[in-house]
Amino acid sequence: MDSLFTANGKFNPNETRGKVISCKGAVVWGPGQPFVMEKVQVDPPQKMEVRVKILFTSICHTDLSAWKGENEAQRAYPRILGHEAAGIIESVGEGVVDMKEGDHVIPIFNGECGDCAYCKSEKTNLCQRFRVNPMKVAMENDGKTRFWTLDGRPIYHFLNTSTFIEYTVLDLACVVKIDPHAHLRNMSLLSCGVSTGVGAAWKTANVQTGSSVAIFGLGAVGLAVAEGARLRGASRIIGIDINPSKFIKGKLLGITDFINPKDLERPVHEIIAEMTGGGVDYSFECTGDSAVLREAFFSTHDGWGLTVILGVHTSPKMLPFHPMELFDGRKLVGSVFGDFKGKTQLPHFAEQCMRGKVNLDEFITHELPFTKISEAFQLLMDGKSLRCLLHLSD
Amino acid sequence: MDSLFTANGKFNPNETRGKVISCKGAVVWGPGQPFVMEKVQVDPPQKMEVRVKILFTSICHTDLSAWKGENEAQRAYPRILGHEAAGIIESVGEGVVDMKEGDHVIPIFNGECGDCAYCKSEKTNLCQRFRVNPMKVAMENDGKTRFWTLDGRPIYHFLNTSTFIEYTVLDLACVVKIDPHAHLRNMSLLSCGVSTGVGAAWKTANVQTGSSVAIFGLGAVGLAVAEGARLRGASRIIGIDINPSKFIKGKLLGITDFINPKDLERPVHEIIAEMTGGGVDYSFECTGDSAVLREAFFSTHDGWGLTVILGVHTSPKMLPFHPMELFDGRKLVGSVFGDFKGKTQLPHFAEQCMRGKVNLDEFITHELPFTKISEAFQLLMDGKSLRCLLHLSD
Repeated sequence: MDSLFTANGKFNPNETRGKVISCKGAVVWGPGQPFVMEKVQVDPPQKMEVRVKILFTSICHTDLSAWKGENEAQRAYPRILGHEAAGIIESVGEGVVDMKEGDHVIPIFNGECGDCAYCKSEKTNLCQRFRVNPMKVAMENDGKTRFWTLDGRPIYHFLNTSTFIEYTVLDLACVVKIDPHAHLRNMSLLSCGVSTGVGAAWKTANVQTGSSVAIFGLGAVGLAVAEGARLRGASRIIGIDINPSKFIKGKLLGITDFINPKDLERPVHEIIAEMTGGGVDYSFECTGDSAVLREAFFSTHDGWGLTVILGVHTSPKMLPFHPMELFDGRKLVGSVFGDFKGKTQLPHFAEQCMRGKVNLDEFITHELPFTKISEAFQLLMDGKSLRCLLHLSD
Repeated sequence: MDSLFTANGKFNPNETRGKVISCKGAVVWGPGQPFVMEKVQVDPPQKMEVRVKILFTSICHTDLSAWKGENEAQRAYPRILGHEAAGIIESVGEGVVDMKEGDHVIPIFNGECGDCAYCKSEKTNLCQRFRVNPMKVAMENDGKTRFWTLDGRPIYHFLNTSTFIEYTVLDLACVVKIDPHAHLRNMSLLSCGVSTGVGAAWKTANVQTGSSVAIFGLGAVGLAVAEGARLRGASRIIGIDINPSKFIKGKLLGITDFINPKDLERPVHEIIAEMTGGGVDYSFECTGDSAVLREAFFSTHDGWGLTVILGVHTSPKMLPFHPMELFDGRKLVGSVFGDFKGKTQLPHFAEQCMRGKVNLDEFITHELPFTKISEAFQLLMDGKSLRCLLHLSD
C-alpha cells in the first residue's frame, strides 16, 4: 500500500482518502502468541480523528507486557499493539482543522483534548477522555474499532495508538504535529520512552544543577532519565542494573557511576548512601519491581529525597513501605509520560531534540524491517536492544 | 518548689540556679501503668541546654500511644512523658547566649540546631541531631538522663521534651522563645497539635484559596488543619469522624460539611467524589488507620489530589496502595510538625496566634491541675477532650 507516495516520492493521498485501506499489520491473536503479519482493513478517520501512515515504530516494555498478556483485565484479541512511532497524516476526519494531510506527526498514548478540566489544569497531564488507559480497546467516538480482518472481524486498538501497522487511526487528541524537517526516525522515540524519561527528570522531579541522581534499571526510559539529568547539570548520576552491558551505553548518556547489585553483598541503598554522603537527591525506579522500588526509595537522602516511579508494576503487590517510612522527608510520586502535556509541550521538546540538545541517536541500537517484529521483541526481551526501530516503508 | 517566683510573683531563680531541683513529676513505670506523682531530682542544664519551669502542659495522642507502650521498641521505664507545653526558663547551661533566665518558651519535640545540612536546607524541617525520635530516651550531650528518682535511678526522657514534670531539661535546639506578652496557656498548643495541623495545611499541602479539603479524624490536629485551611480561604472543608460530637466544635473551626462514615452504606470517598465533582484537592489523614488512609487518598481528585499523612500508624501494615495507584496523579506525603522549622518559624506563627489570627481558644476544652493527669488522659481516650490543659503552678 504505497500509493500514498507517487513514484518520485511525493506525497499523494488522493487514492486513499475517504476509503478503507487494506494494509499490512502485525496482529496478535492471544497472549504471547506470535505476531501474524496479515492484511488489515483500516477505516477512514471519523469526526476529530486522523489516519496516519506509520513510517517508523519501535517497541517499549509496555508493548512487551501487553503482548505477554501480563494484566489479564487488559486482554483483547485480535489486537494491534505498538505505541511508539512516527508517521505522516494520510487523511483527516470531519472537524479536524489544525492538522492536514502530509503533516509529520507522532502518536501519543497519553492524549490531550485541550478542553477538559484536566487539560486546563497546570497540575496534570492526564486528560479526562484520552489519558493512558490500557483497558481501552476501541475508539472514543463510537466505541468501535477502525481495524477489521478481511472477513469482517474487529481488531482491537491499544493504548490510544496501535502502531504495529502501516496505517492507523488516531483521535486528534492523541497525535502531535512536529516540524517537517525533524528526522521522523528519531522522533519516534518521543512517542514514549525518551519523553517519559527526560520528562521525569525535567518535569516530575525537576532535577537541579549539581544534584545527585540514582536510576534503577537502564533500559531506554532509565537512560533517558540519565540524559535529562545530565542536561540539567546533575553532578552525579548513578546507574543501577543487573545487566553489565547496559553500562557502556549508560556512560554515553551521562551515567557517572555504575552499580551492579549482583556484585554486592549489601543492599544497594547502603552503598549509595556511602557514595553520596547520605543518599541521592532523586531516584528513579524504572523496573516495575517492588523490591527495587524499596531500594530506590531508601537510596534517597532523608529530609528531601524524591523517588519517581516509572516502572509498570504488574504484580498485585502493594507499596512496600510502612506509612511511618514517609515521615523521614522522603517523597514518592508516580510519573506518566514524564508529565509532558503531549500536544502543547512535545513540539518544543521535539525542537530541542532537532537542535541536538538531546542525544537521541544513542537510543536506537537496532533497525529492522517491520516484518521482523518478532526478532525486535526478542532483542528487547534479551536485554540486547534499547530501541529497535522498525521501518514500515522499506 | 515555687521558689522560682518570689512572694509577689516576681521571677527569681537565684535559689535554684546550678543546683539539683527536687520537684513533682508524673512518672510512668511501665506500659499503661498509672502515672505516679513523685519527687524527681532534676539536674542543672549542661552545655547548650536549658532548664525550664513548665507552667502548662497538654496531652496529645502521641503521649497516649507512648503511655500504652504501643511501639515496643520505644519502651523505656521509668519515664517522663509529655511534649506539648509552655513555661519559663529557670536557668541556662554553658554556651547558651540567645536565651536567658525568665524567657517565655515552648518546647519542640522536633528540634532545630540551625547548623546541620538539614537545618540549612529549605526542603526539610528534620534536624540531623534533634529531629523527632521516639527511640531517644536521654540527652544528646552525654547520653545520660537529667531526671533521677530519689534513690538515684535514672528516669528516661521522651521525645526531646518530657513535660509532665515541674522542671524539665531541654537541648537549646528544642526550645523556642516566644513573646513574653503571649498567653502561655495558649502557646502550649503550638508545641505540637496546632502547629502540626495548621502547618500541614499551610506548608506541607500549601492549601490554595477556593480549594476543597477533606479531613479524616477531627481531633486537635484534624481541627487545626481545618483552621489552617479556613485561613487559607478553602471554600469547602469536609470533616470526617465516627464521633458525632466532634462536629459541633468542627463548625467553629471552619468545617463546612460533616460525614460520619457510620451513617453511610458506601465508602466515604465515593460520597466525597459526588459532593465535590470528582474529589477534593487535599485530604488529611489524622487517624493512623490504614483503611482510613486509603479512603483519604481516593477522596482526592485524580490528576492533582494531595493526601497528607499526619496520623501515627502503629500497626505493622504496609501502605495500602498498589504502585500503579500512584499513576493517576494523586500524591501522598508525610508531614512532621506541619513542616515548621521550630526555632526559626514558630515565633512568627506564635505572633499570628497572639494577634488572634488563629483561633486557639477553641482547642482547649478542659483544664485541670497537674495532679489530675490520669483524668486528663481518660478524657482524651474517651474522645471527650480536644486538649485538656494541665496547670502545674496551681
